[in-house]
Amino acid sequence: MQIISFSIIQTWERFYRANFINCLTGFKSVNLVGTLHKNGQPNLGIFSSVVHIGSDPALIGYINRPVKAAPHTLANIQSTGVYTINHIHSSFLEQAHQTSAKYPDGVSEFDEVGLTPEFLENLPAPFVKESKVKYALTLEEIIPIKLNDTFLVIGKVQQVCLEEHIVLPDGFLELDKVSSICSNGIDGYYSTRLINRYHYAKPGERTTRMTK
Amino acid sequence: MQIISFSIIQTWERFYRANFINCLTGFKSVNLVGTLHKNGQPNLGIFSSVVHIGSDPALIGYINRPVKAAPHTLANIQSTGVYTINHIHSSFLEQAHQTSAKYPDGVSEFDEVGLTPEFLENLPAPFVKESKVKYALTLEEIIPIKLNDTFLVIGKVQQVCLEEHIVLPDGFLELDKVSSICSNGIDGYYSTRLINRYHYAKPGERTTRMTK
Repeated sequence: MQIISFSIIQTWERFYRANFINCLTGFKSVNLVGTLHKNGQPNLGIFSSVVHIGSDPALIGYINRPVKAAPHTLANIQSTGVYTINHIHSSFLEQAHQTSAKYPDGVSEFDEVGLTPEFLENLPAPFVKESKVKYALTLEEIIPIKLNDTFLVIGKVQQVCLEEHIVLPDGFLELDKVSSICSNGIDGYYSTRLINRYHYAKPGERTTRMTK
Repeated sequence: MQIISFSIIQTWERFYRANFINCLTGFKSVNLVGTLHKNGQPNLGIFSSVVHIGSDPALIGYINRPVKAAPHTLANIQSTGVYTINHIHSSFLEQAHQTSAKYPDGVSEFDEVGLTPEFLENLPAPFVKESKVKYALTLEEIIPIKLNDTFLVIGKVQQVCLEEHIVLPDGFLELDKVSSICSNGIDGYYSTRLINRYHYAKPGERTTRMTK
């Protein structure tokens, strides 16, 4: 095993460090966030920092980089109060990654990368039509993280749109059945395979696998 | 495609809703957080909410549930200012899941589930000896999320300990080579397989795969 200290990490070249540190968190959720500019222009961005905040009510967060580095999604959310989070599947992974390019204001990433905006029930935020698990949120709170000028953006789930066959009788979603992907680092994407589900753990009992 | 509204979700039974909402965020990072009680007692807990905050300096966060539901890890971090995050591999997945049982204060999850505490360079927080990618953090900030009494706990990476062979020349970590796992929902665990890495995306250019 190799041991690396903070003082060594600080000497590294910027992209080497970004790759390394972004991998430390492990395999992570990666999604497309859809928003609408107040002039009606759709916007789509890829985010690998979506995090569960709570189930009752259903609150989901993501980390937005500093305004200077990533202004459009945050400004649109502040303006309309609504946004969508869309799972990425292997079938449109290259288009999803391409949304990370720094397109100028006034350009729709949907058009540029070849994905289809979809509007459901008059919500002022575009879903990704190609996505098989997606949901709309209303903004609840933007919490500034002063340590590095990022933001924790928290929304409440208002509407979920998904392929019904992946919902198990206990509410669990078989995301591997629709090839939702996960990511590692800043540019690696992975498919997944179920190892197992386990019963609710209790002290003094051995962990047991769920029968499928 | 099925559309489900907020008002329907609110009528669901508690565990059904928890399963469903926890799956919405997609495949996610799952890790063991190691801490030390001020009386010297090691503590270990499983968390599926680790999130990248920034690379320079290296800041990593996780969501801690309300104090009443998950008191030990947070109290220890506040007391010592130091904690470890340890990747979970398929070789000790059952032990890792078992740490989610509500053990009483004064019990070491390491002993109960059969994992080995490891202390490196006099840091007052236990690593998981069996883990092949792990790091120690010093507490930077605990941000209360008033919406549901949870907390965003942010630490600075002080020391990384990993198997050297997974580090690529550009800093990327091949986590699949050591079988780091990811999770879905509250009890599903998955292995991963690399689809591809992609070059830095630029407007007007097509996304290209990295040659390996």
